[in-house]
Amino acid sequence: MGGQNWSGGAAFIDGAFCAIEDAKISILDLGVTRSDCTYDVAHVWQGRFYRLGDHLDRFFAGMRTLRLDPGHDRMELEQILHGCVSRAGLRDAYVSMTCTRGRMPVGSRDLRTAQHTFYCFAVPFVWINSPDKQAQGASLWISTIPRIPPESVDSRVKNYHWLDLDRAQLDAYDHGADLVVLRDAGGAITEGPGYNIFAYWDGAWHTPSHGVLSGITRQSVIELVDDSDTRMEQGPVSAEQLRGASEVLVTSTAGGPMPVTTVDGQPVGSGEPGPRCEDLRRRYWARHRDPAWSTPVQYAASHADPTSVDHS
Amino acid sequence: MGGQNWSGGAAFIDGAFCAIEDAKISILDLGVTRSDCTYDVAHVWQGRFYRLGDHLDRFFAGMRTLRLDPGHDRMELEQILHGCVSRAGLRDAYVSMTCTRGRMPVGSRDLRTAQHTFYCFAVPFVWINSPDKQAQGASLWISTIPRIPPESVDSRVKNYHWLDLDRAQLDAYDHGADLVVLRDAGGAITEGPGYNIFAYWDGAWHTPSHGVLSGITRQSVIELVDDSDTRMEQGPVSAEQLRGASEVLVTSTAGGPMPVTTVDGQPVGSGEPGPRCEDLRRRYWARHRDPAWSTPVQYAASHADPTSVDHS
Repeated sequence: MGGQNWSGGAAFIDGAFCAIEDAKISILDLGVTRSDCTYDVAHVWQGRFYRLGDHLDRFFAGMRTLRLDPGHDRMELEQILHGCVSRAGLRDAYVSMTCTRGRMPVGSRDLRTAQHTFYCFAVPFVWINSPDKQAQGASLWISTIPRIPPESVDSRVKNYHWLDLDRAQLDAYDHGADLVVLRDAGGAITEGPGYNIFAYWDGAWHTPSHGVLSGITRQSVIELVDDSDTRMEQGPVSAEQLRGASEVLVTSTAGGPMPVTTVDGQPVGSGEPGPRCEDLRRRYWARHRDPAWSTPVQYAASHADPTSVDHS
Repeated sequence: MGGQNWSGGAAFIDGAFCAIEDAKISILDLGVTRSDCTYDVAHVWQGRFYRLGDHLDRFFAGMRTLRLDPGHDRMELEQILHGCVSRAGLRDAYVSMTCTRGRMPVGSRDLRTAQHTFYCFAVPFVWINSPDKQAQGASLWISTIPRIPPESVDSRVKNYHWLDLDRAQLDAYDHGADLVVLRDAGGAITEGPGYNIFAYWDGAWHTPSHGVLSGITRQSVIELVDDSDTRMEQGPVSAEQLRGASEVLVTSTAGGPMPVTTVDGQPVGSGEPGPRCEDLRRRYWARHRDPAWSTPVQYAASHADPTSVDHS
């Protein structure tokens, strides 16, 4: 195992660490054949996890809701995540963890007989929109495909049910846009593939609160607005309100708050990233050095036994 | 490769055949991380594929809708399926094929840059409900979880968005039932995990037509009813109508038409499998020997090069 190439990232699956390119799951796993799983994505910036505890809280809550057991307690799981980042040797990383329903014994169709699967990985930091693109701002398309309703698939349980999001994204490309946002059946703005959305008008930031993931970056931005003299409103946002906003941004673990400068081909405000968004970005990234919000990665000098989990 | 153990089944993935236990997909594949894929499942009975052409039609239509390319034309793909069944040496088989969005180059978030993934496999025939259980009839629970609406995820494109179905199934177990059926937001009966539903009342068989997969077994049963002196109605079915039906059955490639003898804990009709269901079962299975509906598997005497695809 000493010959592993960790340069692309490191994973932990089937109880052992491996290079990301070797991290594979059975095509019979119910996480594949039924997307019966939950996941979470944290990130590491300049050698520190950002709000790892909040990501773990959400991941464990999702597993409880879906009756999934990762086979590791919270402390072990945290150690495994550190092990992935450390092996990959990454200072800036995208750190994902998944628990699936796993596999049923041959011939069984009873979900209760399944052995659950846990895996996680750390790869170089991923941007929804590259820093270059952020300086300019992204273009956003409002899709006509309705988001899967939370009554069918609980949007608070982070899940891989993204076919509506991906089809909307392909449609957005056709319309020359970088990003997409979906509405609910009633026409209210919900979320995009991997991000929440915020819009500023009439002296307040607004963000949808129903049928969306309770994003950790969304929560950060809500807190940052609450700490300022600007009002924060969580509630329905219409397509008209979004099109008429003077600033728009999306929030994701994969990039933080990122400005949107056109909606449906029309400029947002001046058509450039606005001052309120820039202020939120600055304060969001500053938090990553703050021990109140971040914890140092436990980089090991060497990993003599890459399959061992450090319980210390 | 001569040492493969094909006893559990055979798969084709990454351009080569392998034992089913070795068939794995990257945890970074968009089929895993976004359930961005379509699939189909055919079956082999007594050495013959049943309606393979119809399954391939549906699979290719789904890939066109999702803009996916399996990297094989229809004739190659068919040969690969025969190759899986032949290697596994199965006379009765469950034969699945999947095409996913695949993987984007490292660092990209642009779906259009993804290299799609195709894989398939043959394993021993799977029963939604075992033949023993079919003699007795299954118990069915009507869930309160609404099925993902077709406006969000096109139910005609066979997909792995099953979290609503699996959560409903877990709920059905809690209520002592074997099977589950979900309703749409308006309360109309839709489908269960892997099956369509039929109910008989007032001299006609009824089956939902909106928000359901256009099942091949569903189609077979519709044709078999049309060939009889019983009326076939495709349209809305309410929970009340289902509870009051004198016969109920589910249809799946994994088992054909299978009788349901209790709904929400109450007996259907006499509480035993009804004569109309038994007649449909008999005629459904008889079709499997009929060359109009079935084609023989091309069993090869040997597979000298298990990675080759026979283009003959």
